Amino acid sequence: MHTLGRHLLLELNGCNPKLLNDIKRVEEILVAGARIAKATIVGTHFHQFSPFGISGVVVIAESHVAIHTWPEHGYAALDIFTCGETLSPEAAAQYFVDKFQARHPALFELKRGIIPDPKPAKVGLVVKEVFPYDRPQELQVVS
Amino acid sequence: MHTLGRHLLLELNGCNPKLLNDIKRVEEILVAGARIAKATIVGTHFHQFSPFGISGVVVIAESHVAIHTWPEHGYAALDIFTCGETLSPEAAAQYFVDKFQARHPALFELKRGIIPDPKPAKVGLVVKEVFPYDRPQELQVVS
Repeated sequence: MHTLGRHLLLELNGCNPKLLNDIKRVEEILVAGARIAKATIVGTHFHQFSPFGISGVVVIAESHVAIHTWPEHGYAALDIFTCGETLSPEAAAQYFVDKFQARHPALFELKRGIIPDPKPAKVGLVVKEVFPYDRPQELQVVS
Repeated sequence: MHTLGRHLLLELNGCNPKLLNDIKRVEEILVAGARIAKATIVGTHFHQFSPFGISGVVVIAESHVAIHTWPEHGYAALDIFTCGETLSPEAAAQYFVDKFQARHPALFELKRGIIPDPKPAKVGLVVKEVFPYDRPQELQVVS
């Protein structure tokens, strides 16, 4: 079984409410966290709501980091969605917990996009790698 | 118990792979879906990866809609994160399943940001509304 994406969901309760309403700081923290995860940033979009609250997304080459804040509740929902084997989303999660001063954080991980392993190929034969959902992919076995 | 955000997670398997690699169509579908959910769009960011795959985010006044596609697996991960009582994220979810021609969709809902109801106020008194995490908020009871 192979997983295409890892999705960390952070429930950040008991945060510093001033921080959660400071769009410049929120963007700095999210961008720094994405770098700590070793992600490649391809774009950012942050928005300040009235009377308070911020939504922000950092689009990364390996998916996205998103935040929504409710300063009036000291709460932020933070998602770190990554693909590939080289990233460190947990390091980013720890950084976000620290930086937003979350006294009551919770972390959940979801595996997104489960792809069964292809069936073992017969050596010396040209076989079709069997992917789920009837989408075969040619596989040339060379040894 | 009160929930600040609703987070619908769609696992779209068995999609039309051509659609999943057509950045213009993917953006059109996401924007149309956000409108079907009655969301207010404040920004979009879409990115085409090489050799294939698209990441896209529609930032809405009520949070975000995000997609990551793996055309080679006929798979897309789609998130619809909303807050407020007036939106219809399920209608958007149904629209996305139809438009991406997902033959094997799965839908999960998460409640993000659980806020206990404030304690009942005593009529005629100025009381403190008790929010979790030691963040009291003044509440003037007027009747």
